[in-house]
Amino acid sequence: MLGRLNHVAIAVPDLAAAAAQYRTMLGAEVTEPQALPEHGVTVVFIELPNTKIELLEPLGEGSPIAAFLEKNPSGGMHHVCYEVEDILAARDRLRNEGARVLGSGEPKTGAHNKPVLFLHPKDFNGTLIELEQV
Amino acid sequence: MLGRLNHVAIAVPDLAAAAAQYRTMLGAEVTEPQALPEHGVTVVFIELPNTKIELLEPLGEGSPIAAFLEKNPSGGMHHVCYEVEDILAARDRLRNEGARVLGSGEPKTGAHNKPVLFLHPKDFNGTLIELEQV
Repeated sequence: MLGRLNHVAIAVPDLAAAAAQYRTMLGAEVTEPQALPEHGVTVVFIELPNTKIELLEPLGEGSPIAAFLEKNPSGGMHHVCYEVEDILAARDRLRNEGARVLGSGEPKTGAHNKPVLFLHPKDFNGTLIELEQV
Repeated sequence: MLGRLNHVAIAVPDLAAAAAQYRTMLGAEVTEPQALPEHGVTVVFIELPNTKIELLEPLGEGSPIAAFLEKNPSGGMHHVCYEVEDILAARDRLRNEGARVLGSGEPKTGAHNKPVLFLHPKDFNGTLIELEQV
């Protein structure tokens, strides 16, 4: 069921500083910031040969990463995103096996304009998992 | 400088349970457990088409992930590992830019029998970064 690792998301308190650091210290290719107000984040992508890292900074009120940054003021790894071919089949399989899907269980449109779901981190060793249909 | 994302490491309190969960709930290909006593962990790999996830369980006294699991008893994302071509050049560049390399700064032999270094998470938005020379 699991396909590619689409991305690893890292929440950061200061996106410009983090982007500069990945560029200068780590010699990484970093995209320009994109504000995604409907997702409550501003994002840059660190483009790696086989996948990408997303650096996320809160945007606006009620950002989904605000509570995480309150607990982890200097930032931290926030979630991993795996690709699946059929997100509804994935959801049903997970529910049948007893895993909790966050929210209503209906896929939402994610930051890449594809259907996504999130799984409860308590069911997966403290790891927030995003599934994205590709 | 940064090459491929070699792996994402997730520390787990119960490796057998976590491996079973990735197999049955997420339909992932999971390798058999390998004990790495010299690294203080037992590990399984979740093989994805483009990279891998390492699930780590403490092994023996003084495991490098013991303190992390004390703070995060249900587990959590522990580090990300990026590939570099020349680990000494990477280290020198990082130090010149003011980043802290953990330990003596001399590469150690990592779990894949390749030279590795770890960077201080406080310098990278709360993210522990491993560099592996490939």
